[in-house]
Amino acid sequence: MRIQVEQKKLAKHINIVQKGISSKTTLPILDGILLEAKEGRLKLTGTDLEIGIESYIEANVLEEGSIVINSRLFGDIVKKLPNSEIDISTSENKMNIICGSSQFNLIGNPALEYPELPTLIDQLSLKIPMDLFKNIIRQTVFATTQDETRPILTGVLFEIIDGNASFVALDGYRLALRNVKIDSSEDIKVVIPGRTLSELNKILEEDEEDIEITLTPGHIVFNIGDTLVFSRLLEGQFLNYRDIIREDHETKVKVNRKELQDSLERASLLAKEEKANLVKLNLFEDKLAIKSNSEIGNVHENMDVELEGKDVNIAFNSKYILDGIKAIEEEEIELFFMGSLNPCIIKPVEDDNYIYLVLPVRLAKDDY
Amino acid sequence: MRIQVEQKKLAKHINIVQKGISSKTTLPILDGILLEAKEGRLKLTGTDLEIGIESYIEANVLEEGSIVINSRLFGDIVKKLPNSEIDISTSENKMNIICGSSQFNLIGNPALEYPELPTLIDQLSLKIPMDLFKNIIRQTVFATTQDETRPILTGVLFEIIDGNASFVALDGYRLALRNVKIDSSEDIKVVIPGRTLSELNKILEEDEEDIEITLTPGHIVFNIGDTLVFSRLLEGQFLNYRDIIREDHETKVKVNRKELQDSLERASLLAKEEKANLVKLNLFEDKLAIKSNSEIGNVHENMDVELEGKDVNIAFNSKYILDGIKAIEEEEIELFFMGSLNPCIIKPVEDDNYIYLVLPVRLAKDDY
Repeated sequence: MRIQVEQKKLAKHINIVQKGISSKTTLPILDGILLEAKEGRLKLTGTDLEIGIESYIEANVLEEGSIVINSRLFGDIVKKLPNSEIDISTSENKMNIICGSSQFNLIGNPALEYPELPTLIDQLSLKIPMDLFKNIIRQTVFATTQDETRPILTGVLFEIIDGNASFVALDGYRLALRNVKIDSSEDIKVVIPGRTLSELNKILEEDEEDIEITLTPGHIVFNIGDTLVFSRLLEGQFLNYRDIIREDHETKVKVNRKELQDSLERASLLAKEEKANLVKLNLFEDKLAIKSNSEIGNVHENMDVELEGKDVNIAFNSKYILDGIKAIEEEEIELFFMGSLNPCIIKPVEDDNYIYLVLPVRLAKDDY
Repeated sequence: MRIQVEQKKLAKHINIVQKGISSKTTLPILDGILLEAKEGRLKLTGTDLEIGIESYIEANVLEEGSIVINSRLFGDIVKKLPNSEIDISTSENKMNIICGSSQFNLIGNPALEYPELPTLIDQLSLKIPMDLFKNIIRQTVFATTQDETRPILTGVLFEIIDGNASFVALDGYRLALRNVKIDSSEDIKVVIPGRTLSELNKILEEDEEDIEITLTPGHIVFNIGDTLVFSRLLEGQFLNYRDIIREDHETKVKVNRKELQDSLERASLLAKEEKANLVKLNLFEDKLAIKSNSEIGNVHENMDVELEGKDVNIAFNSKYILDGIKAIEEEEIELFFMGSLNPCIIKPVEDDNYIYLVLPVRLAKDDY
């Protein structure tokens, strides 16, 4: 192959496909980027067999061909070259890079040794604005589990029923649910690996342009203009999350989100000195008191709130309650309680687009 | 003690004295910051017994007193408080912090348990602009050794002879020398620990204001307005660096610094794949060719230079030659060679304010 390509463009697209490459691969060929020059375009591919990313760049293709080249080294070299035209040619498994007065000769691998990405048969396609999808990822993916013994919970459930889409993550301690309207005639229910969404989030730009999502048996494909991100779907039964979210409550509290977040963050400075990472909330007469203590000291935070219903004393792992509050953008939020043993539900005021549920920590009565 | 102090100011000065506190201390009291309220000021002290930092803040002192409080926790709390007035009071070893609707109770230690910083008898004082001193640190401290078996070389030599000051660092592979004019009537020769200079560099602002340097037997003190940095001096005989820097040369090369740096950085991408981290320089007929190779490939870089004298083939550890080139700010630099076995000297063109010397790596004749 022989191509001429702009340094800046090439560096950008290498960076994109590198998101699909795992540093912990056991298959050496997967350390590489597959380069394929054809019909006026250079196609870059990176994969760890779970995720695959293909990205296309316009290039002056003087001779078609392909090669696999070490991703890290190739990326570092291209990044360090001056912003001008790069001349890349290959012969068998050797690559020659010329740019200005720099010349590199690298040893790669034949493209034949690179695994084939699955051939996909479209089942269903839908569109969603990029910035909205970034937000959905931000609001859910943190609540997936890192525990590989429960693989299905390392992913985010993506469900559409009658044009109402829900994205759900849960790890046994908390649940994050994002609802959006999506233009889709068919119902679906799939589980997308959390890692896929995290990597996708790094590639997506804050942009109102649409990303196209295609489902095929066992796979999902995200089409972002010149880049395709493939991912396996997770297999197995996701928990029936609807049963977890109760509608009834004994206590409803309206509070300023930022103020609550700041107070919890200060309280957690002492909470995190202890293993349980405990913050205690006492709600009584339009007041919220947050307390935490450790060997080295204790903290009291007081806030004004709007309380409807019963007083409540409840305790949480400070990280779990904070994660959900930080995921919300709205200024005012509502917290719903049903005693000190049932989950707390957190939502933006009068808005069911986002629901966060967190389990309390059970304490002896005198410890609240 | 009881004081009122501005959150923003307190956070800033905690951050300063934390630079003197080591995370690896074996003496638990040194994890703490000593707070002393007296005569309308709060004095903060942090030390690891090698370095000591004292910083003063204006405060409303309602009751004088002192306490030692965990540096990390106290710093984290103050950082997270709102930007308003903080009320701090202590009774015995307990501290109470009130700010807005937040209240913290922390357990500290009595100030009596805190080690005393040395009482210093001034020997000599001199002044140097802050931004110049930052630059001196940047240009020398990286060339000190990390090898604790040669303690004197972990420091930077500070020498004044007839008003000519020299700052020198060397580690057996390279030497960095910075010369400046300083208004001083006395000659001095001391070795300042590299760590002191690195921490000082983080505190100093890019500012033309003077920093006052005071020498006392065994110690050096840097006075930066409201902050004093004390440091032990290193004991022992520094190498006679003047013998290392030869004046004669067989080859002189003038080259654009940025261009050389970029080429060496690209070459080092392959060099660093191998343990020796080797780059080879071939100088002939106003051309500089830089080469490096590893198992995975090789690189050739070509540059135009102005060469006077003999051609030369020489090899370096790419990190050592690059460090020196990056330390220079001037656009054009000169390299002086005396064959392939003697050190290379690098300087800004027609300027002896900065001299960097780097040892070559000896190769078999055919390997250049």
